[in-house]
Amino acid sequence: MTARLNPQTYAPQHFLWEFAGGVGTVTLNRPERKNPLTFASYAELRDLFRELTYAREVKVIVIAGAGGNFSSGGDVFEIIGPLTEMAIPELLAFTRMTGDLVKAMRACPQPIVAALDGICVGAGAIMAMASDLRLATPRTKTAFLFTRVGLAGCDMGACAILPRIIGQGRASELLYTGRVMSAEEGERWGFHNRLVDGEVVAEAAQLAADLAAGPTFAHGITKTQLSAEWNVGIETAIEMEAQAQAICMATKDFRRAFEAFADKRTPVFEGD
Amino acid sequence: MTARLNPQTYAPQHFLWEFAGGVGTVTLNRPERKNPLTFASYAELRDLFRELTYAREVKVIVIAGAGGNFSSGGDVFEIIGPLTEMAIPELLAFTRMTGDLVKAMRACPQPIVAALDGICVGAGAIMAMASDLRLATPRTKTAFLFTRVGLAGCDMGACAILPRIIGQGRASELLYTGRVMSAEEGERWGFHNRLVDGEVVAEAAQLAADLAAGPTFAHGITKTQLSAEWNVGIETAIEMEAQAQAICMATKDFRRAFEAFADKRTPVFEGD
Amino acid sequence: MTARLNPQTYAPQHFLWEFAGGVGTVTLNRPERKNPLTFASYAELRDLFRELTYAREVKVIVIAGAGGNFSSGGDVFEIIGPLTEMAIPELLAFTRMTGDLVKAMRACPQPIVAALDGICVGAGAIMAMASDLRLATPRTKTAFLFTRVGLAGCDMGACAILPRIIGQGRASELLYTGRVMSAEEGERWGFHNRLVDGEVVAEAAQLAADLAAGPTFAHGITKTQLSAEWNVGIETAIEMEAQAQAICMATKDFRRAFEAFADKRTPVFEGD
Repeated sequence: MTARLNPQTYAPQHFLWEFAGGVGTVTLNRPERKNPLTFASYAELRDLFRELTYAREVKVIVIAGAGGNFSSGGDVFEIIGPLTEMAIPELLAFTRMTGDLVKAMRACPQPIVAALDGICVGAGAIMAMASDLRLATPRTKTAFLFTRVGLAGCDMGACAILPRIIGQGRASELLYTGRVMSAEEGERWGFHNRLVDGEVVAEAAQLAADLAAGPTFAHGITKTQLSAEWNVGIETAIEMEAQAQAICMATKDFRRAFEAFADKRTPVFEGD
Repeated sequence: MTARLNPQTYAPQHFLWEFAGGVGTVTLNRPERKNPLTFASYAELRDLFRELTYAREVKVIVIAGAGGNFSSGGDVFEIIGPLTEMAIPELLAFTRMTGDLVKAMRACPQPIVAALDGICVGAGAIMAMASDLRLATPRTKTAFLFTRVGLAGCDMGACAILPRIIGQGRASELLYTGRVMSAEEGERWGFHNRLVDGEVVAEAAQLAADLAAGPTFAHGITKTQLSAEWNVGIETAIEMEAQAQAICMATKDFRRAFEAFADKRTPVFEGD
Repeated sequence: MTARLNPQTYAPQHFLWEFAGGVGTVTLNRPERKNPLTFASYAELRDLFRELTYAREVKVIVIAGAGGNFSSGGDVFEIIGPLTEMAIPELLAFTRMTGDLVKAMRACPQPIVAALDGICVGAGAIMAMASDLRLATPRTKTAFLFTRVGLAGCDMGACAILPRIIGQGRASELLYTGRVMSAEEGERWGFHNRLVDGEVVAEAAQLAADLAAGPTFAHGITKTQLSAEWNVGIETAIEMEAQAQAICMATKDFRRAFEAFADKRTPVFEGD
């Protein structure tokens, strides 16, 4: 992918893409198999999220699955079978590629809203975890089930990221046992931001639209800092934020907010 | 402020100060404006918390707001307006000054108990976050609303500290959307230690008095370690604690506790 | 302990040891004193957990207490009294020894399941905290009560580990005040994975047996990564996991899982 991504014309091969109002929506779309991932779809997702760094007209991303499920994760026959035949260098190339998807999801400036329903397991659970915000339905079943296929829980950043979302003890249980986290547990533990009774994709789209109408340059800085301050000391984090926020105070959006407040209007942000 | 702070005579210009029984109480006191912060009050608060490092007779701090609200944060006309006119070096000087307040709150050895009621937003929410313990009322509304004025969520350490208190997913929602965290959510998510139906300032004062009657030298070490171990490995943290606790075992308070236990008395700690 | 530990014949002096089906069970066994720790039992526990690194036939550990309590922690007369007589080098030798117990619990590859009941305080609460999974009963009372004996909350890693389990605000309260965390709070806050109405030791044994029947080499990698990624950046963590998971994909257990899935059988893991 040498040309830059044009969100208006982007036509991926392994998932659906829609773009409107600054919001790009990725829909995993093999509903008859509960939207598994394959070597090719991993790579195409990774490339998309990498390109989003440069796609300034895309303000927010929604990820969803077709047909009432989010994703069943890496396909058993298309991924796990071939992996059992590979030598270590090939295995590492694969685990690095899947890890690169999470790195790209965390590195792009767009907040990612996951719309979760039904099955959300394996690499599907990881993509949910790597998102910024998660809406789910009471039917959502989330499992980090790597242990069920003989693997460790440390897949694509799970041992680092999941404990920061739900706590070290609960993450340990999910990663050692591979058991399902119910939707109710997910909300209670802070994994899901909200459970939605009706149309979770529509609610995620609304949340994304609200974010896209906000100060999107500043949202990108928020996202950068949430990752960049992961493992620095408190004093360093505060200095990093002093610099990052000073940049945001020099934006037009900050002035727009003040002028709207002074005029008793609602501000209209433009992301610059 | 070259002379050391005398808590008996300290008379700040921009907030109230009371001192009794080892407990210093800061009350933000512009109730007609819901206790906003200004350039001058930020600076005076920063100077106070810096001085507290040397004020050994002050054992615990309570922070509260007058008139049923904690704080409305940075004043729109006294702070935000002038900031929109500043160049980058002045903006950075401002964000560093506000960050220095949080640094000073974390660096002083006194546990800080926040008594939260009503509006607790912007820099007010940050001061609550930077405290050690938080009591609130069912009326407390907490919002990190920087995004509402066109800024990023990374203000005064929020992207580093808030995720460690309430989890990465919930913190992300509050910082991207600026929405209110209700008192009930705050308790359920671990931001508020307790909701208080009656007089929250009185309950905070009681908690502070209990802490001031404890081994206050050791409390200061607890506070130091809670920050110092923020981003070190587990093995390093354990060695740091071995050294820190060995110091505490050499205090008279440790001996006082043992002797009281042997005599079936309640220990009387003196903080040395 | 120069010879390697033989779990079939291991006969500790200061606690009970049972071994069956790959699960080693440690039972603190001075029920008339609520299972306190002494200098000798600390050292013997530390030596056991250090040896477990090399004891490949031990797959999972259960820790429990006899007589309806987990542990009352360091004995007042056998530990605290003598400590009040020691000089700094001896004190540091003691705090390093107790810290070494936690280091060894985190460093051994076996998941540790704590079965908590009744009193779980002081060093007992620390051993619970240092375990991977915690089952408790409605009667379990957990307290990090170091402050009650004049010490700081930073004991054996508590200021680093407890905040990652229950959040910084709740951990601060427990460490500054030494108050009891009720069983219900412990479950709600993510300290206890589950409250068990009946026989907590039997439930812990069942959970341990389930884990021992899993891919135990991979479990050891999960445990290693949960600690090793504690304070690294997200990108580094993902690279570490890519390498760690590639190792697991080269194990026979991974192939066993795929073959069982293809044959519509339940996989039988052997830990290699």
